[in-house]
Amino acid sequence: MNDLTFYANRTVLITGGLGFIGSNLARRLVDLGARVTLVDSLIPDYGGNRFNIASYEDRLCVNLADVRDPHAMRALVQGQELLFNLAGQVSHIDSMTDPFSDLEINARAQLSILEACRHENPDIKVVYAGTRQQYGKPQYLPLDERHLQHPTDVNGVNKLAGEWYHIVYHTAYGLRTASLRLTNTYGPRQLMQHNRQGFIGWFIRLAVEGKEIQLYGDGRQLRDLNYVDDVVDAFLRVGVSDASNGQVYNLGGDMPVSLYDLAHLLVEIAGQGSVRLVPWPEERKRIDIGDVYSSYAALEASLGWRPTTSLRDGLARTVAYYREHWPHYWS
Amino acid sequence: MNDLTFYANRTVLITGGLGFIGSNLARRLVDLGARVTLVDSLIPDYGGNRFNIASYEDRLCVNLADVRDPHAMRALVQGQELLFNLAGQVSHIDSMTDPFSDLEINARAQLSILEACRHENPDIKVVYAGTRQQYGKPQYLPLDERHLQHPTDVNGVNKLAGEWYHIVYHTAYGLRTASLRLTNTYGPRQLMQHNRQGFIGWFIRLAVEGKEIQLYGDGRQLRDLNYVDDVVDAFLRVGVSDASNGQVYNLGGDMPVSLYDLAHLLVEIAGQGSVRLVPWPEERKRIDIGDVYSSYAALEASLGWRPTTSLRDGLARTVAYYREHWPHYWS
Repeated sequence: MNDLTFYANRTVLITGGLGFIGSNLARRLVDLGARVTLVDSLIPDYGGNRFNIASYEDRLCVNLADVRDPHAMRALVQGQELLFNLAGQVSHIDSMTDPFSDLEINARAQLSILEACRHENPDIKVVYAGTRQQYGKPQYLPLDERHLQHPTDVNGVNKLAGEWYHIVYHTAYGLRTASLRLTNTYGPRQLMQHNRQGFIGWFIRLAVEGKEIQLYGDGRQLRDLNYVDDVVDAFLRVGVSDASNGQVYNLGGDMPVSLYDLAHLLVEIAGQGSVRLVPWPEERKRIDIGDVYSSYAALEASLGWRPTTSLRDGLARTVAYYREHWPHYWS
Repeated sequence: MNDLTFYANRTVLITGGLGFIGSNLARRLVDLGARVTLVDSLIPDYGGNRFNIASYEDRLCVNLADVRDPHAMRALVQGQELLFNLAGQVSHIDSMTDPFSDLEINARAQLSILEACRHENPDIKVVYAGTRQQYGKPQYLPLDERHLQHPTDVNGVNKLAGEWYHIVYHTAYGLRTASLRLTNTYGPRQLMQHNRQGFIGWFIRLAVEGKEIQLYGDGRQLRDLNYVDDVVDAFLRVGVSDASNGQVYNLGGDMPVSLYDLAHLLVEIAGQGSVRLVPWPEERKRIDIGDVYSSYAALEASLGWRPTTSLRDGLARTVAYYREHWPHYWS
């Protein structure tokens, strides 16, 4: 069942709640009448941003805490009916320069959150944010959930571990957990301060600033993208559904797009900026994983989810948002 | 190439070197002329046992240290040509009662060992001991390396992470790493003090003690087993081979055997003990994963490895070993 009126008066905890997806989810849940508590530690450069809940501050509760704090988490999960577990270190680059912080946040903290749920609130529903990065370099396309997980960076390994703790706690203890493996998500409230969290936010910023977007090689690498409202809708549907317990589902875009076409579409929508092809830097070419996009067929079959925002519409809304609010996102 | 004369005068570090497989590997390496250093922390109940290197004490170096100690490991990897990375928490049961120790040893310490190698000794060859437990409940048999990893306990998740750190450090940094996914290994020098490290050691102890072996249900669950000398041979072959870098290989037995037939064979070989079928305890039935056995075809194709010790011969040697030395293994 996908009746989102379910959320009226529900108690909902969101880790990473001041971040990109967490804050969009929080706003939607407040609109649906949920009683929402956000957990965020506002680590600089990670994506948490108080402006993300602008005009909603009085209708939800913000609890500043780090998911690595087992005592805080143990208290915070009590009395909650749902947990959207979105806190994470999401930069692949940072995971290689500081692998232990990535492990502590993306693996160890997840285990400690699940222990807290098991002991303090075994009836809670937990929805985790995994990533298509867990698959690594594709062996076939589109990526489905039967594709082997061959992560190519420390972040991918730790996200994989974090996800599988969730599934193990379902198998072993009956905890009602599920995971969504996200692809490239874009939209309002995304981190734009630096370019270490993926290409799409950075491309959008360059377009809004009227700058040049540089693409490696011929720019023909294919990617899929989801507008954040569609991702929020997926989390909400999984949160309602007991059929999702113990399950893992890909998200995915409707149609893969080349970076070349994407960048040109952005420049067209922004009415400014430019695109330039540059040669592959040797060290980037070596770790390039080529075309990557995912199939959301399993989630559609199970819960009827599919993305409903076209790339053009989503980018237009995103560009408009940052035109208005950019000083809250970069300096 | 599989010429094990390669090991003469090589410097070799073995983590978990006083444990079951580590000590058998160490003895073989000493016989091959290698200069062997063992790292072990002798954590009670984990399997490290000084008696395992009886009569070899003067021909190798024992360094008591915990793989969770990044400073010790950073110093220990220096000057080593090979690292057989076998230290681990191997009890699935213990991983559920103490998931954080399991994470620290099987995941975090692995990351810290790899960081040590990358910074201090980037030319070292590292061979990791993974486990078929990473696959979880089989979706088809025999398990090959293309089977999805669906671990069913915290130990399986952490072993998976530990293995993939190794592969990532090959992909990203060119570190010469490989992983063997072990199935049920048995033989001399195995932990026999308790039954939390798998069934085979415990069955052997019961037979040697002339006690009753209890099997759940009809005892027809199939398993495969490897005699420890064959496992040691696999590690040695992978250690020599650069074709194995970045690769993951299953080990596996030649023929799956039912627990019923295995237990009766053990009783026959021991000339004592008995077998009894008992009903499944409800909580065990729920987490039973049915038949499990692995294919070693990939390792055979790549490095020519196959097990050479028959189950009957291996069990006979094992029973003889514990008949002579049991006071060093249980009290």
